Amino acid sequence: MVFKLAIMGKPKAWILTIGNELLIGRIVNTNASWLARRLTFLGFSVERIIVTPDEPAEVAEEIRRALSRDDVKVIITTGGLGPTYDDRTLEAVARAINRPLRLNEQALQWVRQKYESGGMQMTKEREKMAYLPEGAEPIRNPVGTAPGSLVAAGEALIASLPGVPAEMQAMFEELMPRLKQLAPPLEVIDCGFIVVGVPESSLAPYVEEAERKNPGCYVKSHPKGHEIRGPVLEIRVLASARTRDEARELALRALEVVKGGARSLSGEITEEGCQE
Amino acid sequence: MVFKLAIMGKPKAWILTIGNELLIGRIVNTNASWLARRLTFLGFSVERIIVTPDEPAEVAEEIRRALSRDDVKVIITTGGLGPTYDDRTLEAVARAINRPLRLNEQALQWVRQKYESGGMQMTKEREKMAYLPEGAEPIRNPVGTAPGSLVAAGEALIASLPGVPAEMQAMFEELMPRLKQLAPPLEVIDCGFIVVGVPESSLAPYVEEAERKNPGCYVKSHPKGHEIRGPVLEIRVLASARTRDEARELALRALEVVKGGARSLSGEITEEGCQE
Repeated sequence: MVFKLAIMGKPKAWILTIGNELLIGRIVNTNASWLARRLTFLGFSVERIIVTPDEPAEVAEEIRRALSRDDVKVIITTGGLGPTYDDRTLEAVARAINRPLRLNEQALQWVRQKYESGGMQMTKEREKMAYLPEGAEPIRNPVGTAPGSLVAAGEALIASLPGVPAEMQAMFEELMPRLKQLAPPLEVIDCGFIVVGVPESSLAPYVEEAERKNPGCYVKSHPKGHEIRGPVLEIRVLASARTRDEARELALRALEVVKGGARSLSGEITEEGCQE
Repeated sequence: MVFKLAIMGKPKAWILTIGNELLIGRIVNTNASWLARRLTFLGFSVERIIVTPDEPAEVAEEIRRALSRDDVKVIITTGGLGPTYDDRTLEAVARAINRPLRLNEQALQWVRQKYESGGMQMTKEREKMAYLPEGAEPIRNPVGTAPGSLVAAGEALIASLPGVPAEMQAMFEELMPRLKQLAPPLEVIDCGFIVVGVPESSLAPYVEEAERKNPGCYVKSHPKGHEIRGPVLEIRVLASARTRDEARELALRALEVVKGGARSLSGEITEEGCQE
């Protein structure tokens, strides 16, 4: 069963990053890649990253879509928790799960403490940040002011984090114990090397063979040079198994297939290594 | 009518960036932000950026969803055009519009020329790159080897570009004349400044007022410091109008509202400027 998990049964996660500033290309979506990396190494399979406008109807549509898939266990939203008129993510979450927004006493206390510690009064914009979907737990924000929200919907958890990267990352750590409960008993490793001198189209059959012969591995070639005039490929394997040693062994076995192919095509292999 | 366009009637665009390497957080999605920026300044409203796995069924689902919305005029996919077994984007496009893949003679000629110029023979992996959805035009790849695909589906255009950024960007330029035909007669500008010393929650009512009073503007505050201990906000306005001068005037008028608020709250204003 664990072996099956490693191949195909990973619980799925969706990442919804909310904000027009992403859709107009003003900022690069580093929150999505950071979250995707963390969720992947926890053993989740990230199935979608979606950027939506700051429109509750659009956000709610995507949350409902994620919830309609049985195997999606985690939905993480970023952005739209702040004090401005277009910060409406929790309205969208509430709408998607057919619950009202309620003033959360714990969240209100956190927000009030933050502002009072700076000698500031509560205003309606500040109080707004303490309205969570009914039944949600507030997530403490150790860096900024807007609390997050964690709410169960069927078998899935919906966690809403701020868009400011330092706040989002700190609050993800607060979520870790809850995510680990949903994560499978898997260790994940990402290993690879660089091949110089072999076109991607020549190495393609070996990449396919490496993946086919090693269930639990995802093998990919990333072209970094010029296919014909000066081919450079980065080969990466993401491997999942019950233990770290098994995952590493699996990754190296898959890489060996590609390496054999690269050598037979007179490729030069450099920069071997793993990230875990 | 042009005025109405500036407010709400912009043609919509969806960006689908395809690849497991994005979903495992191995790479940051700079293709999406680059395309979003270019489409925004052409006058399109980017409504979704979606990252999907290299699975034709998943990609086709998102393309169909985009096509089911009347106002989506452009769908751009990136990734999955190469020679490896998991490069299956055009299979997904074909499936979404119920057409078969066909070997395209022009595309085949380009691919063959590229490899032959390097003294290499055609193989099945190389030929694969010349299969396009029936009725698609190939897009020349001036940088790499895999051609792109441009196919009309109802009122929308589906353009498929490679995932390698230099190839994607060069091929987007080849697409520009076609995109301009679909773009509205609008000029777009992005202006802003930095406010030091005012919490986002205090400035929030002015940000809302600036947007409400200036149709055609999208006004946003981006927190860069600490809300209570040392607030720093970046204020940005994206403005659209018939001419560049009008767009700039509109942006500056909206910014003036926020600036007035910031000054009344003893904020210091720096780094004013526009991008167009």
